Amino acid sequence: MENASDPRDEVLEKYRRGIVQVYTGNGKGKTTAAFGQALRAAGQGLNVCIIQFMKGRKYGEYIAAERLAPNLTVHLSGLDSFVMRDNPAPLDIELAGRGLELAREAISSGKYDMVILDEMNVTLDFKLLPLDAVIELIKTKPPRLDLVLTGRYAPAEIIELADTVTEMREIKHHYNAGIKDRAGIEY
Amino acid sequence: MENASDPRDEVLEKYRRGIVQVYTGNGKGKTTAAFGQALRAAGQGLNVCIIQFMKGRKYGEYIAAERLAPNLTVHLSGLDSFVMRDNPAPLDIELAGRGLELAREAISSGKYDMVILDEMNVTLDFKLLPLDAVIELIKTKPPRLDLVLTGRYAPAEIIELADTVTEMREIKHHYNAGIKDRAGIEY
Repeated sequence: MENASDPRDEVLEKYRRGIVQVYTGNGKGKTTAAFGQALRAAGQGLNVCIIQFMKGRKYGEYIAAERLAPNLTVHLSGLDSFVMRDNPAPLDIELAGRGLELAREAISSGKYDMVILDEMNVTLDFKLLPLDAVIELIKTKPPRLDLVLTGRYAPAEIIELADTVTEMREIKHHYNAGIKDRAGIEY
Repeated sequence: MENASDPRDEVLEKYRRGIVQVYTGNGKGKTTAAFGQALRAAGQGLNVCIIQFMKGRKYGEYIAAERLAPNLTVHLSGLDSFVMRDNPAPLDIELAGRGLELAREAISSGKYDMVILDEMNVTLDFKLLPLDAVIELIKTKPPRLDLVLTGRYAPAEIIELADTVTEMREIKHHYNAGIKDRAGIEY
Protein backbone atom coordinates (compact mmCIF):
# COMPACT_ATOMS: atom_id res chain seq x y z
CA MET A 1 0.00 0.00 0.00
CA GLU A 2 1.03 3.61 -0.40
CA ASN A 3 2.94 5.17 2.44
CA ALA A 4 0.19 7.00 4.36
CA SER A 5 2.63 9.63 5.64
CA ASP A 6 3.12 11.20 2.22
CA PRO A 7 0.33 13.74 1.57
CA ARG A 8 0.91 13.53 -2.19
CA ASP A 9 -0.38 9.97 -2.18
CA GLU A 10 -3.88 11.01 -1.21
CA VAL A 11 -4.03 13.60 -3.96
CA LEU A 12 -2.58 11.24 -6.55
CA GLU A 13 -4.97 8.51 -5.46
CA LYS A 14 -7.94 10.84 -5.99
CA TYR A 15 -6.95 11.33 -9.61
CA ARG A 16 -5.89 7.75 -10.17
CA ARG A 17 -7.35 6.14 -13.20
CA GLY A 18 -7.20 2.52 -14.15
CA ILE A 19 -5.10 1.48 -17.10
CA VAL A 20 -6.18 -0.89 -19.85
CA GLN A 21 -3.20 -2.97 -20.97
CA VAL A 22 -3.01 -5.36 -23.92
CA TYR A 23 -0.29 -7.96 -24.48
CA THR A 24 -0.44 -9.45 -27.96
CA GLY A 25 1.82 -10.75 -30.74
CA ASN A 26 3.36 -14.11 -31.64
CA GLY A 27 6.24 -14.12 -29.12
CA LYS A 28 6.59 -15.85 -25.76
CA GLY A 29 5.75 -13.74 -22.70
CA LYS A 30 2.15 -12.52 -22.94
CA THR A 31 0.51 -14.56 -20.19
CA THR A 32 3.65 -14.42 -18.05
CA ALA A 33 3.76 -10.60 -18.41
CA ALA A 34 0.16 -10.45 -17.17
CA PHE A 35 0.92 -12.74 -14.24
CA GLY A 36 4.06 -10.76 -13.46
CA GLN A 37 1.91 -7.63 -13.45
CA ALA A 38 -0.47 -9.43 -11.07
CA LEU A 39 2.47 -10.39 -8.85
CA ARG A 40 3.62 -6.76 -8.77
CA ALA A 41 0.12 -5.52 -7.98
CA ALA A 42 -0.45 -8.16 -5.29
CA GLY A 43 2.86 -7.20 -3.70
CA GLN A 44 1.62 -3.62 -3.49
CA GLY A 45 -1.47 -4.78 -1.64
CA LEU A 46 -3.88 -4.64 -4.58
CA ASN A 47 -6.45 -7.36 -5.17
CA VAL A 48 -6.26 -9.06 -8.53
CA CYS A 49 -8.65 -11.45 -10.27
CA ILE A 50 -7.44 -13.44 -13.27
CA ILE A 51 -9.77 -15.32 -15.59
CA GLN A 52 -8.02 -17.71 -17.94
CA PHE A 53 -10.02 -18.26 -21.10
CA MET A 54 -9.50 -21.33 -23.29
CA LYS A 55 -7.41 -22.96 -20.57
CA GLY A 56 -8.57 -25.86 -18.41
CA ARG A 57 -5.35 -26.95 -16.82
CA LYS A 58 -3.71 -25.58 -13.69
CA TYR A 59 -0.48 -24.11 -15.07
CA GLY A 60 2.40 -23.32 -12.71
CA GLU A 61 1.23 -19.73 -12.34
CA TYR A 62 -2.20 -20.97 -11.22
CA ILE A 63 -0.66 -23.25 -8.59
CA ALA A 64 1.70 -20.53 -7.33
CA ALA A 65 -1.11 -17.96 -7.28
CA GLU A 66 -2.77 -19.87 -4.46
CA ARG A 67 0.17 -18.84 -2.29
CA LEU A 68 -0.62 -15.20 -3.05
CA ALA A 69 -4.21 -15.44 -1.84
CA PRO A 70 -6.19 -13.43 -0.87
CA ASN A 71 -4.55 -10.85 -3.16
CA LEU A 72 -4.68 -13.08 -6.21
CA THR A 73 -7.61 -15.19 -7.40
CA VAL A 74 -7.47 -17.28 -10.59
CA HIS A 75 -10.36 -18.90 -12.45
CA LEU A 76 -10.08 -21.33 -15.35
CA SER A 77 -12.78 -21.03 -17.98
CA GLY A 78 -11.83 -23.44 -20.73
CA LEU A 79 -10.96 -27.04 -21.46
CA ASP A 80 -7.56 -28.72 -21.38
CA SER A 81 -7.71 -29.36 -25.12
CA PHE A 82 -7.20 -27.25 -28.20
CA VAL A 83 -10.17 -25.37 -29.58
CA MET A 84 -10.83 -25.95 -33.28
CA ARG A 85 -10.61 -22.50 -34.76
CA ASP A 86 -13.16 -23.09 -37.49
CA ASN A 87 -15.34 -25.48 -35.55
CA PRO A 88 -15.34 -24.79 -31.79
CA ALA A 89 -17.28 -27.24 -29.66
CA PRO A 90 -20.49 -25.98 -27.98
CA LEU A 91 -18.74 -26.52 -24.64
CA ASP A 92 -15.88 -24.20 -25.65
CA ILE A 93 -18.40 -21.48 -26.40
CA GLU A 94 -20.34 -22.13 -23.21
CA LEU A 95 -17.19 -21.96 -21.07
CA ALA A 96 -16.08 -18.73 -22.73
CA GLY A 97 -19.52 -17.30 -21.96
CA ARG A 98 -19.18 -18.39 -18.35
CA GLY A 99 -15.76 -16.71 -18.26
CA LEU A 100 -17.31 -13.50 -19.53
CA GLU A 101 -19.91 -13.69 -16.77
CA LEU A 102 -17.14 -14.17 -14.20
CA ALA A 103 -15.33 -11.18 -15.72
CA ARG A 104 -18.46 -9.01 -15.48
CA GLU A 105 -18.96 -10.01 -11.86
CA ALA A 106 -15.29 -9.43 -10.95
CA ILE A 107 -15.18 -6.05 -12.68
CA SER A 108 -18.37 -4.72 -11.12
CA SER A 109 -17.97 -6.32 -7.68
CA GLY A 110 -15.67 -3.65 -6.24
CA LYS A 111 -13.57 -6.45 -4.75
CA TYR A 112 -10.71 -6.12 -7.20
CA ASP A 113 -8.26 -3.39 -8.20
CA MET A 114 -7.08 -5.29 -11.28
CA VAL A 115 -8.79 -7.83 -13.52
CA ILE A 116 -6.82 -9.87 -16.05
CA LEU A 117 -8.57 -11.60 -18.96
CA ASP A 118 -5.94 -14.09 -20.09
CA GLU A 119 -6.23 -15.21 -23.76
CA MET A 120 -9.19 -12.89 -24.35
CA ASN A 121 -7.83 -11.82 -27.74
CA VAL A 122 -7.68 -15.41 -29.00
CA THR A 123 -11.14 -16.06 -27.57
CA LEU A 124 -12.41 -13.17 -29.71
CA ASP A 125 -10.44 -14.22 -32.77
CA PHE A 126 -11.95 -17.71 -32.49
CA LYS A 127 -15.38 -16.09 -32.14
CA LEU A 128 -16.12 -17.82 -28.86
CA LEU A 129 -17.41 -14.47 -27.60
CA PRO A 130 -18.97 -11.49 -29.40
CA LEU A 131 -16.56 -8.56 -29.72
CA ASP A 132 -19.30 -6.07 -28.83
CA ALA A 133 -19.78 -7.63 -25.39
CA VAL A 134 -16.09 -7.27 -24.56
CA ILE A 135 -15.93 -3.70 -25.89
CA GLU A 136 -18.93 -2.88 -23.69
CA LEU A 137 -17.17 -4.47 -20.71
CA ILE A 138 -14.07 -2.31 -21.24
CA LYS A 139 -16.06 0.89 -21.79
CA THR A 140 -18.21 0.45 -18.69
CA LYS A 141 -15.55 -0.71 -16.25
CA PRO A 142 -15.17 1.29 -13.02
CA PRO A 143 -12.77 4.17 -13.88
CA ARG A 144 -10.13 3.16 -11.33
CA LEU A 145 -10.04 -0.53 -12.18
CA ASP A 146 -6.96 -1.77 -14.04
CA LEU A 147 -7.70 -4.20 -16.83
CA VAL A 148 -5.26 -6.47 -18.70
CA LEU A 149 -6.06 -8.50 -21.82
CA THR A 150 -3.67 -11.02 -23.35
CA GLY A 151 -3.46 -13.20 -26.43
CA ARG A 152 -2.49 -13.11 -30.07
CA TYR A 153 -4.60 -11.36 -32.65
CA ALA A 154 -5.82 -8.43 -30.54
CA PRO A 155 -8.70 -6.84 -32.51
CA ALA A 156 -8.15 -3.27 -33.71
CA GLU A 157 -11.12 -2.10 -31.63
CA ILE A 158 -9.51 -3.40 -28.43
CA ILE A 159 -6.16 -1.80 -29.30
CA GLU A 160 -7.98 1.48 -29.91
CA LEU A 161 -9.57 1.36 -26.42
CA ALA A 162 -6.37 0.37 -24.60
CA ASP A 163 -3.95 2.77 -22.91
CA THR A 164 -0.92 0.52 -23.25
CA VAL A 165 -0.34 -2.10 -25.93
CA THR A 166 2.75 -4.26 -26.20
CA GLU A 167 3.37 -6.55 -29.12
CA MET A 168 5.48 -9.53 -28.09
CA ARG A 169 7.43 -10.17 -31.28
CA GLU A 170 9.14 -13.52 -31.72
CA ILE A 171 12.78 -13.01 -32.69
CA LYS A 172 13.70 -16.62 -31.87
CA HIS A 173 11.89 -19.53 -30.22
CA HIS A 174 13.27 -22.73 -28.77
CA TYR A 175 10.43 -24.67 -30.47
CA ASN A 176 12.32 -24.11 -33.69
CA ALA A 177 15.30 -25.95 -32.21
CA GLY A 178 13.04 -28.92 -31.48
CA ILE A 179 12.72 -28.26 -27.74
CA LYS A 180 9.33 -29.37 -26.43
CA ASP A 181 6.94 -27.85 -23.89
CA ARG A 182 8.14 -28.25 -20.34
CA ALA A 183 6.75 -27.67 -16.86
CA GLY A 184 7.91 -24.31 -15.53
CA ILE A 185 8.57 -22.91 -18.99
CA GLU A 186 5.36 -23.28 -21.01
CA TYR A 187 2.92 -24.32 -18.30
CA MET B 1 6.60 -31.43 -10.01
CA GLU B 2 6.09 -33.94 -12.79
CA ASN B 3 3.69 -36.77 -12.16
CA ALA B 4 5.99 -39.61 -11.07
CA SER B 5 3.62 -42.26 -12.38
CA ASP B 6 4.23 -41.36 -16.01
CA PRO B 7 7.33 -43.22 -17.29
CA ARG B 8 7.80 -40.67 -20.07
CA ASP B 9 8.70 -38.01 -17.53
CA GLU B 10 11.85 -39.82 -16.47
CA VAL B 11 13.02 -40.16 -20.07
CA LEU B 12 12.15 -36.56 -20.92
CA GLU B 13 13.87 -35.32 -17.78
CA LYS B 14 17.07 -37.12 -18.77
CA TYR B 15 17.19 -35.17 -22.00
CA ARG B 16 15.98 -31.92 -20.52
CA ARG B 17 18.07 -28.95 -21.38
CA GLY B 18 17.84 -25.50 -19.90
CA ILE B 19 16.55 -22.69 -22.05
CA VAL B 20 18.13 -19.26 -22.37
CA GLN B 21 15.39 -16.65 -22.76
CA VAL B 22 15.80 -12.96 -23.54
CA TYR B 23 13.09 -10.30 -23.14
CA THR B 24 14.09 -7.03 -24.77
CA GLY B 25 12.59 -4.08 -26.67
CA ASN B 26 11.03 -0.74 -25.73
CA GLY B 27 7.58 -1.99 -24.66
CA LYS B 28 6.13 -2.64 -21.22
CA GLY B 29 6.28 -6.24 -19.99
CA LYS B 30 9.90 -7.40 -19.91
CA THR B 31 10.47 -7.65 -16.17
CA THR B 32 6.89 -8.75 -15.55
CA ALA B 33 7.26 -11.52 -18.17
CA ALA B 34 10.37 -12.74 -16.34
CA PHE B 35 8.61 -12.67 -12.97
CA GLY B 36 5.57 -14.39 -14.48
CA GLN B 37 7.94 -17.07 -15.78
CA ALA B 38 9.36 -17.34 -12.25
CA LEU B 39 5.83 -17.66 -10.83
CA ARG B 40 5.08 -20.44 -13.32
CA ALA B 41 8.33 -22.24 -12.51
CA ALA B 42 7.85 -21.86 -8.75
CA GLY B 43 4.33 -23.26 -9.08
CA GLN B 44 5.80 -26.33 -10.76
CA GLY B 45 8.13 -26.82 -7.80
CA LEU B 46 11.26 -25.40 -9.40
CA ASN B 47 13.62 -23.15 -7.46
CA VAL B 48 14.23 -19.74 -8.96
CA CYS B 49 16.76 -17.04 -8.14
CA ILE B 50 16.24 -13.52 -9.49
CA ILE B 51 18.93 -10.86 -9.43
CA GLN B 52 17.67 -7.37 -10.18
CA PHE B 53 20.42 -5.20 -11.64
CA MET B 54 20.24 -1.39 -11.54
CA LYS B 55 17.33 -1.58 -9.10
CA GLY B 56 17.54 -0.73 -5.43
CA ARG B 57 13.91 -0.53 -4.47
CA LYS B 58 11.61 -3.35 -3.45
CA TYR B 59 9.06 -3.36 -6.27
CA GLY B 60 5.72 -5.13 -5.80
CA GLU B 61 7.09 -8.30 -7.38
CA TYR B 62 9.93 -8.35 -4.84
CA ILE B 63 7.50 -8.01 -1.94
CA ALA B 64 5.15 -10.68 -3.33
CA ALA B 65 8.07 -13.00 -4.06
CA GLU B 66 8.67 -13.39 -0.35
CA ARG B 67 5.36 -15.23 -0.18
CA LEU B 68 6.69 -17.71 -2.75
CA ALA B 69 9.75 -18.60 -0.70
CA PRO B 70 11.56 -20.96 -0.64
CA ASN B 71 10.90 -21.45 -4.38
CA LEU B 72 11.66 -17.85 -5.24
CA THR B 73 14.59 -15.74 -4.02
CA VAL B 74 15.15 -12.15 -5.14
CA HIS B 75 18.27 -10.01 -4.74
CA LEU B 76 18.58 -6.31 -5.51
CA SER B 77 21.90 -5.20 -6.87
CA GLY B 78 21.56 -1.53 -7.69
CA LEU B 79 20.57 1.84 -6.27
CA ASP B 80 17.14 3.43 -6.14
CA SER B 81 18.25 6.20 -8.49
CA PHE B 82 18.83 6.48 -12.21
CA VAL B 83 22.24 5.55 -13.55
CA MET B 84 23.85 8.20 -15.76
CA ARG B 85 24.39 6.40 -19.02
CA ASP B 86 27.53 8.30 -19.95
CA ASN B 87 28.83 8.79 -16.46
CA PRO B 88 27.85 5.94 -14.11
CA ALA B 89 28.87 6.36 -10.48
CA PRO B 90 31.57 4.02 -9.12
CA LEU B 91 28.94 2.60 -6.77
CA ASP B 92 26.71 1.65 -9.74
CA ILE B 93 29.61 -0.27 -11.26
CA GLU B 94 30.48 -1.88 -7.94
CA LEU B 95 26.90 -3.01 -7.34
CA ALA B 96 26.62 -4.43 -10.86
CA GLY B 97 29.83 -6.36 -10.20
CA ARG B 98 28.41 -7.68 -6.94
CA GLY B 99 25.27 -8.72 -8.86
CA LEU B 100 27.42 -10.62 -11.33
CA GLU B 101 29.11 -12.41 -8.43
CA LEU B 102 25.70 -13.32 -7.01
CA ALA B 103 24.68 -14.57 -10.46
CA ARG B 104 27.81 -16.74 -10.74
CA GLU B 105 27.18 -18.21 -7.30
CA ALA B 106 23.48 -18.85 -8.00
CA ILE B 107 24.19 -20.45 -11.37
CA SER B 108 26.94 -22.75 -10.13
CA SER B 109 25.43 -23.57 -6.73
CA GLY B 110 23.10 -26.31 -7.93
CA LYS B 111 20.41 -24.81 -5.70
CA TYR B 112 18.38 -23.31 -8.53
CA ASP B 113 16.59 -24.60 -11.61
CA MET B 114 16.15 -21.13 -13.07
CA VAL B 115 18.16 -17.92 -12.71
CA ILE B 116 16.78 -14.58 -13.89
CA LEU B 117 19.09 -11.62 -14.51
CA ASP B 118 16.66 -8.70 -14.58
CA GLU B 119 17.86 -5.62 -16.53
CA MET B 120 21.07 -7.38 -17.55
CA ASN B 121 20.83 -6.01 -21.11
CA VAL B 122 20.68 -2.41 -19.89
CA THR B 123 23.52 -3.10 -17.47
CA LEU B 124 25.63 -4.19 -20.44
CA ASP B 125 24.50 -1.30 -22.62
CA PHE B 126 25.52 1.12 -19.85
CA LYS B 127 28.86 -0.70 -19.65
CA LEU B 128 28.47 -1.43 -15.94
CA LEU B 129 29.68 -4.96 -16.69
CA PRO B 130 31.97 -6.35 -19.40
CA LEU B 131 30.04 -8.22 -22.10
CA ASP B 132 32.67 -10.99 -22.19
CA ALA B 133 32.00 -11.90 -18.55
CA VAL B 134 28.28 -12.34 -19.19
CA ILE B 135 28.84 -14.32 -22.39
CA GLU B 136 31.16 -16.60 -20.43
CA LEU B 137 28.50 -17.01 -17.74
CA ILE B 138 25.90 -18.07 -20.31
CA LYS B 139 28.27 -20.43 -22.12
CA THR B 140 29.41 -22.18 -18.95
CA LYS B 141 26.07 -22.50 -17.16
CA PRO B 142 25.01 -26.01 -16.11
CA PRO B 143 23.24 -27.53 -19.16
CA ARG B 144 19.91 -28.02 -17.39
CA LEU B 145 19.68 -24.58 -15.81
CA ASP B 146 17.14 -22.18 -17.29
CA LEU B 147 18.40 -18.64 -17.68
CA VAL B 148 16.38 -15.49 -18.36
CA LEU B 149 17.82 -12.06 -19.22
CA THR B 150 15.71 -8.91 -19.49
CA GLY B 151 16.16 -5.29 -20.50
CA ARG B 152 16.27 -3.04 -23.53
CA TYR B 153 19.18 -3.06 -25.93
CA ALA B 154 20.03 -6.77 -25.81
CA PRO B 155 23.49 -7.11 -27.40
CA ALA B 156 23.66 -9.14 -30.63
CA GLU B 157 26.05 -11.61 -28.97
CA ILE B 158 23.46 -12.38 -26.26
CA ILE B 159 20.67 -12.78 -28.82
CA GLU B 160 22.91 -15.17 -30.75
CA LEU B 161 23.43 -17.35 -27.65
CA ALA B 162 19.77 -17.37 -26.59
CA ASP B 163 17.23 -20.06 -27.47
CA THR B 164 14.20 -17.78 -27.22
CA VAL B 165 14.15 -14.03 -27.77
CA THR B 166 11.05 -11.87 -27.53
CA GLU B 167 11.05 -8.22 -28.47
CA MET B 168 8.46 -6.29 -26.48
CA ARG B 169 7.43 -3.67 -28.99
CA GLU B 170 5.58 -0.60 -27.77
CA ILE B 171 2.43 -0.04 -29.81
CA LYS B 172 0.99 2.39 -27.27
CA HIS B 173 1.97 3.49 -23.78
CA HIS B 174 -0.06 5.28 -21.12
CA TYR B 175 2.94 7.54 -20.41
CA ASN B 176 2.11 9.25 -23.67
CA ALA B 177 -1.34 10.11 -22.29
CA GLY B 178 0.32 11.77 -19.29
CA ILE B 179 -0.38 8.93 -16.85
CA LYS B 180 2.38 8.68 -14.26
CA ASP B 181 4.09 5.70 -12.62
CA ARG B 182 1.91 3.97 -10.09
CA ALA B 183 2.33 1.24 -7.46
CA GLY B 184 1.16 -2.08 -8.83
CA ILE B 185 1.63 -1.03 -12.45
CA GLU B 186 5.24 0.19 -12.82
CA TYR B 187 6.69 -0.89 -9.47
